[in-house]
Amino acid sequence: MCEANAYIVENGNEELLMESVDIVEPEEDNSSYRLISIFGEQKIVKGRIRMMNLVDHRILFEKVM
Amino acid sequence: MCEANAYIVENGNEELLMESVDIVEPEEDNSSYRLISIFGEQKIVKGRIRMMNLVDHRILFEKVM
Repeated sequence: MCEANAYIVENGNEELLMESVDIVEPEEDNSSYRLISIFGEQKIVKGRIRMMNLVDHRILFEKVM
Repeated sequence: MCEANAYIVENGNEELLMESVDIVEPEEDNSSYRLISIFGEQKIVKGRIRMMNLVDHRILFEKVM
């Protein structure tokens, strides 16, 4: 399976937001993203994408100043 | 391998931008993204992310009006 783990970077630290993320889609306000895991779990992340590394299964978000 | 294919949606049609994308990162202007494939190929996409579906290996971009 090719899901990824999503992290948010804050003060230089990475905090795990969700494991096994399947779907990432922007919310209508365009300042947050909806994450949906392969288990159907959902979470809204306020921030923007800093980097996705699919081979390493990593999606990094960062807060917008 | 867990890379994905990147498409841009225009007038309801999906056009393939790049196969085997590993890395997606925003450019400094925040209105475009740099794609890097597992082969080292690079491409800049002007637009925003509409949807990522990692299990289906799909990243959809759309142009900003």
